[in-house]
Amino acid sequence: MKELPLLKLVSEIFTNDHNLLIGPGDDCAAIKLNPEDDSLLLLAVDQLNPGVHYIQETASPKKIAEKLLKRNLSDIAAMGGNPSYALASLSFKQDTKQEFCVNLLKALAESAKVYDICVCGGDISKSLFSDCFSLTIVGNVTEAKIATRSGARDSDALFCTGLFGKSFETEHHFTFIPRLKEGAFLAGSFTKTMIDVSDGLLLDASRIAKKSKIGLKLFCDKIPLRANASLKNALTDGEDYELLFAVPLEKAHELEKIWTFSTPLTKIGVFSSNIPAGDVINEQGDALLNSNYCIYPLAGYEHHSP
Amino acid sequence: MKELPLLKLVSEIFTNDHNLLIGPGDDCAAIKLNPEDDSLLLLAVDQLNPGVHYIQETASPKKIAEKLLKRNLSDIAAMGGNPSYALASLSFKQDTKQEFCVNLLKALAESAKVYDICVCGGDISKSLFSDCFSLTIVGNVTEAKIATRSGARDSDALFCTGLFGKSFETEHHFTFIPRLKEGAFLAGSFTKTMIDVSDGLLLDASRIAKKSKIGLKLFCDKIPLRANASLKNALTDGEDYELLFAVPLEKAHELEKIWTFSTPLTKIGVFSSNIPAGDVINEQGDALLNSNYCIYPLAGYEHHSP
Repeated sequence: MKELPLLKLVSEIFTNDHNLLIGPGDDCAAIKLNPEDDSLLLLAVDQLNPGVHYIQETASPKKIAEKLLKRNLSDIAAMGGNPSYALASLSFKQDTKQEFCVNLLKALAESAKVYDICVCGGDISKSLFSDCFSLTIVGNVTEAKIATRSGARDSDALFCTGLFGKSFETEHHFTFIPRLKEGAFLAGSFTKTMIDVSDGLLLDASRIAKKSKIGLKLFCDKIPLRANASLKNALTDGEDYELLFAVPLEKAHELEKIWTFSTPLTKIGVFSSNIPAGDVINEQGDALLNSNYCIYPLAGYEHHSP
Repeated sequence: MKELPLLKLVSEIFTNDHNLLIGPGDDCAAIKLNPEDDSLLLLAVDQLNPGVHYIQETASPKKIAEKLLKRNLSDIAAMGGNPSYALASLSFKQDTKQEFCVNLLKALAESAKVYDICVCGGDISKSLFSDCFSLTIVGNVTEAKIATRSGARDSDALFCTGLFGKSFETEHHFTFIPRLKEGAFLAGSFTKTMIDVSDGLLLDASRIAKKSKIGLKLFCDKIPLRANASLKNALTDGEDYELLFAVPLEKAHELEKIWTFSTPLTKIGVFSSNIPAGDVINEQGDALLNSNYCIYPLAGYEHHSP
């Protein structure tokens, strides 16, 4: 199976509904439940599979449960929202030890408590072949505040939180803190265009460019690298769970001035209508990614364990 | 792994929230999003695993997709609710043919259209070991109408829709029609206590009895059997996706009189405070299921393929 053509298919075959303000193809779906209310319901689901999102032999149930919750929280953060409820869908391989299952459930309950999430439901099933975990997150955001992937304009600056690359090697993919506070602070006031980086900075940045129908110039030497990470690692490894967002030029300086979070904030690019829509180039004007070409194989996208 | 102790653990470790009217342990979670509004948000998630919920070698992508959606719709039906949105969480084994994945997605879109469900999001991942599918359903119901597992009272009649037993052998587990219309008709007007039978009539009936803190007498010779099904099949096979519900004595006759659905309606038991809470007995007074004892091994519960 190949993931990218399936995602493309999804965007074509599922019919929308007039209360669905944001459908498949963003970090969360956003639904207007009540026409008289500014509040939107946010919904997202993300999975964890052994050998793909963690190494079965070494990952503790605690690490798995925390990552399962946190990668979904990161999707809510990217919309500028507040998470509230979760449903866990857990398949355990039939010979998985009961202790592992119990510890995973307990760790999920603990982690949910830390983030003030109420686990309101779920499903537990046995699997003949493999563990397989999925979590649905519910949140909310106002219509005035919501950030999507499609609002970047000419001359907007591209900012990022945190560092990039070597997420697997450094265990960052387990230890990361979802950028909920930063996302809620940024959305509505400094940005209307945000994504969380799970599939690699380059691919996720291009998703903003594509959805916003604009080109992007990346300042490659400005991209903040995690310890021992190369530029290639930063652009393609994925699983960084940092925020990428577009800030109008006139607000960029103010943002840098008032940023008080300990999380690093870095300007790493600029959107431009002089660059073909959806394309990403470097400062020298060389293509990093366009519809026919990518300078790197997008390894990050496939969430390979090292 | 053993499923029942894990479900028991779930009911103990996850903390509730004051807007969560119904939490883990019912067919859906029910959340009051707006204190000024009678409407409740319903959420549920259910999985399909090869070899557990279908036979990998013979199940078409269409059958899998339809069952994945419909078994979740059955959970909404059991609350008396209307389904609206769905999120699909799909793991495909890495060597699964692209055609299978494409056909499954297309069938899900088709089936969603039939039931007027908007698939608003999801996740697609590769798995090293096995396909694994999960779907989250979103719906709504009013507080006045909602049916849960906990409202059965002394002398209430237990009714069921449809037939029971041999769901796998007859392909009923693929072809069933979720009882959405029947559930919506019954809830609020004839019942406040309903469950859908996925884990076997006996176990699911006992769940109403347990949650309602009352005993239940089953009229075993009245239980409507699917073709060639024995009483044991009917009580324990599971995957019937029929509704079981409690109706106050004074309304039972009226219900039978005005029932116009083509779906069979049968009175199969009576709740009684003379029977220990949570116990299920037959007409002769023999225990069918209590906390220490079950007349049959609950095969249905484990969702074994034949």
